[in-house]
Formats: sequence, structure tokens, C-alpha cells
Amino acid sequence: MTTNDGVRVSVLGLGAMGSALAAALVRAGHETTVWNRSPGRADDLVAQGARVAATAADAVRASPLVIACLLDHASVHEVLDPLAGDLAGRTLVNVTTTSPEQSRELAAWAAEAGVAYLDGGIMAVPQMIGQPGSSILYSGSADAFEEHRAVLDLWGDSTWFGEDPGLASLYDLALLAGMYVMFAGFMHGAAMVAPAGVSATRFAAMAAPWLTAMTGGFHEFAKVIDGGDYTVEGQQSLEFSDLRDILTASVEQGVSTEVVDMVQRLIRRQIDAGHGKEGFARIVESIRHPG
Amino acid sequence: MTTNDGVRVSVLGLGAMGSALAAALVRAGHETTVWNRSPGRADDLVAQGARVAATAADAVRASPLVIACLLDHASVHEVLDPLAGDLAGRTLVNVTTTSPEQSRELAAWAAEAGVAYLDGGIMAVPQMIGQPGSSILYSGSADAFEEHRAVLDLWGDSTWFGEDPGLASLYDLALLAGMYVMFAGFMHGAAMVAPAGVSATRFAAMAAPWLTAMTGGFHEFAKVIDGGDYTVEGQQSLEFSDLRDILTASVEQGVSTEVVDMVQRLIRRQIDAGHGKEGFARIVESIRHPG
Repeated sequence: MTTNDGVRVSVLGLGAMGSALAAALVRAGHETTVWNRSPGRADDLVAQGARVAATAADAVRASPLVIACLLDHASVHEVLDPLAGDLAGRTLVNVTTTSPEQSRELAAWAAEAGVAYLDGGIMAVPQMIGQPGSSILYSGSADAFEEHRAVLDLWGDSTWFGEDPGLASLYDLALLAGMYVMFAGFMHGAAMVAPAGVSATRFAAMAAPWLTAMTGGFHEFAKVIDGGDYTVEGQQSLEFSDLRDILTASVEQGVSTEVVDMVQRLIRRQIDAGHGKEGFARIVESIRHPG
Repeated sequence: MTTNDGVRVSVLGLGAMGSALAAALVRAGHETTVWNRSPGRADDLVAQGARVAATAADAVRASPLVIACLLDHASVHEVLDPLAGDLAGRTLVNVTTTSPEQSRELAAWAAEAGVAYLDGGIMAVPQMIGQPGSSILYSGSADAFEEHRAVLDLWGDSTWFGEDPGLASLYDLALLAGMYVMFAGFMHGAAMVAPAGVSATRFAAMAAPWLTAMTGGFHEFAKVIDGGDYTVEGQQSLEFSDLRDILTASVEQGVSTEVVDMVQRLIRRQIDAGHGKEGFARIVESIRHPG
């Protein structure tokens, strides 16, 4: 593949993730222009074949496809607000981490400026970009997604969720929430067994396959949640899901109970509201309706 | 296989789990005696070939290997305290859910009575007993585990963790803690995306492979925890792990933040103690040292 085969792409922001995205573009033969607020971050990429732009304006003007991978929502405005005129008619793919509302706000700003806007949520660490397992979620302009699909696929599996520009970031943050909470659960288990002389490594060797197997339960929970009837037969009831034994053992082991208390509170609120005989999936109602 | 091939086994307690354990024994041709406090639960098992005992004492006297699968720690004492003399010289495998301290107390009681004691934690639902994926954790008498290994393996993969009779229940509860916390994280994600019209089923289809992939991180966390140095290079720092975006999006979606707040508090305590540049695995210290 020569540099003439692909679309020109500019990448704004050369943190670890921006650099990984740019490197994948260069490897695939795209004419790639990079820019970073503080200089020096582009040296490796230039050695690989990227061009460095002196200003963000130069970078934007260099390519029909502009990728923003900046610190946060405010940085996107800071860098791009003065360049609205230059961006007009181009496509902006914003993979900066933002909340769904912030993504929607940026999409509205882009629409006003005549810019096609695609919002992206990257479900990968920089080292995974372009490797199997890297998954990137998009929402916003369907046309932009279709037109640039080949470029986006260089980074990982691309999925478009819908025209609502907040959807990708919503999925992204919902999946990250699941991840961080799972990590806390793993840490709690590791802390419980540690006083008995069990290493975290030994516990991890059991916990990883166990929790992997237990993700098989999500689909059953989801069926009940989507069906809206928590009384269907064959479910583990909320009353049966009492976590007292786990809490007692945590106290015996001298570790904090706060991680498990969180789940116990979700269960307890449903039992207290008279739903103790219904299925465990009902704890989602404790989350949907803040107390 | 005839009934003479195997050891005689008695099962006390015919809830869903006790019944599943007994059914697997009968299927394998073991002479199986069953007992339940309230009558009528044994009918199906008797039809399959089990013998029903009129009293717990009769059940204990029928077999050298006695399985207790009762409601809780108190039920084990209630049923077995009057039968200490009958149990002497036999092996008791207690798979009733108890805390590690309760398992140790029962083991001490058994030792006093001259009973070989093995404590078991069943990592399976009743339908999984004897099927692939069923895993049962044991601790206590190594001799009893070795002698009866062939019977125990009928129910699932058997692992013996050590002579400390509390270990199996400790592992069991630590793994269950991880599972319940992961479920809460899944439910939080499902609650976040629901207002955007995303079904729990669609979210589950993304969350299950995502969280499965992320269990791959446990081993790296464990290496850091076991190494005791949270400053090693290449880790995601606590400061980078700020969950504000997830919390903001949760509020925007109108759902409770309590599930994610729990993780944020673990992170925050370490940052406040001056460890913000250290790795995320350090949240285990927040759990190990209750505030």
C-alpha cells in the first residue's frame, strides 16, 4: 500500500492513545499529520513517516478526516473552537473521553460549523490498538462512519450504535463501570483470602475462570429485566441472595465490608419493598430508582 | 457398575443442592441413604434407587461417608450434636454454607468426636452438579479427601486447599463476593444504557465478552499486589482511574451512583493518602485496611 491509496488523516493529541492511533494510520500507509500541544511527542511518529504540524490549524487543514484524542471535553473546545471555519466540510472523529451529554453538545457545535461528527469510545488500551481484542464504539453521523470505515477498522473492531452522538460514550462508560466494579470485586476477594496465606496470584487463577463462567448469567438476568417480570420461575430469589455469610467472613478476615455492603444495600432495598421472593435481577431497580 | 462397587454414602438435607448431590451418587451406583427433616423430599430419589432413612441417626449409621448439606451452621449442630457417638469413626463432608470460622468450629467439634472432617464449598448451581463447569472446593482432612476423592469427583472438579478447614469456605465466599459485585456492575451498566433505549439483552451481549476479556487483567494486578510495590512502571495510575465521567453520565441517565461511588471511594482514599501516581491495584489496600 502506498501513501496514495488512503485518505489523508490528521490526529490531534499525542498522548499514549493518540500516538497509537496515529502509528496505526502510518503503518497502513495513510498520509498522516500529527499535532500535540506540547512539542516533542511527535518524534517517534515522524521517524515512522508521519508529518508534524506546527499548529492545530495546520493539522486540520491538512486532511479531510480529523481525529481528536485530547484530554477532556474542555480541551476539545479549547483546541477546535478557533478552528470551526477550517473544520467546515471535513469529518471530525472525536475519541476524547466525554460524557454522553458532552458528546451531544460537541455534535451540535460541529453541526453548526458544518462539520460531520462521529463520536468514538475506545475499549482498548493503547498497546491493543490494531490488535485482536481492540473494540471501538461509534455513534453520530452514519455517513461519516460508512465513508471512513476502512480507516476506523485499522484500530480495532468498529461498531456504530446510532445517530445519537451520545450513544458511543454511554456504552463506553457503562462497560467501563462494569469493569471497574468487577475489579473492585476481585480485589475484595483477594483481600479476603490474603490473611490465610493465599497469594493474589493464586486467587486470580481461580477468580478469572470463575467470573468468566459467571458472565454467562448476564443473558438470563437481561431476559428477566427486558421481560419486566421479576417473578418468573427458576430464578435465585433476593432472599436467597443474602450476603451475610460473605460479610461475616470479611469481618473475620479483618477487611473492609464496603464493597459487598454496596450489593447488600441494593438487595435489601428490594426486599424491604416487599420483593424478597422475586429474582436477583431485580437489584437493577435499586439502581434505576435512586433512593 | 453395581451397588457393590462404591462406598456407601448418606446425604443429610434434601434441598435442591442436597438432592442433586444424592442423585449423582445414585446414578454412579453408590448405595445412597438420604434423610431430610421434613418428609416427602426423598420420593424422586427413592424412585431412582436411594434408600430413605426415617431419622438422621439411621442415615448416619448406614454409611461410613456422611454428607451434610443443611441450611446453615446452626442446623448442622442441631442435627449432628445428638449423633456425635454415631458419627465417631466415620467421615463427615460438610457442604453446608458456613463462614470460615464456623467451618473451623465444626472441624474442632468433629475432631473431639473422633470424626474425620472435610469442609466443602460448591461453586455450582444444583443443575450443574456432575456436569462440566461444576467445581467444588475442599479443605480439612487430607486423608478423607484422598480416600473419598472418587466420590467427590462425581459432583464436579474437586480441589483440596489445605488442612485449615476454613479455607474452602473462605475461597468459596471470596469467589462469591467477586461474582455478586460483578453482577452489580453489570446491572449498573444495564441501568445506564436503558434510558437510551438499549435493552439489557443487547448490553449483556457486549458486557459478557468485555468483562471476560478484562478478567485477563487480574493476573497483572495480582503480580503487583504480591510484589508489594505499587510504583512499578506500566500500570494505569490511580489518578488516571478517576471515575468522574462514569459518575457524571450515571447522573445524566438518572440512575443511582452508589455502585460506582464504592469504587471511587476506594481510589480516593489511596489518592488522598498520597498514592495517586501508583497503580490501580493499590485499591486493595483500601479494602485491607478498613477506614
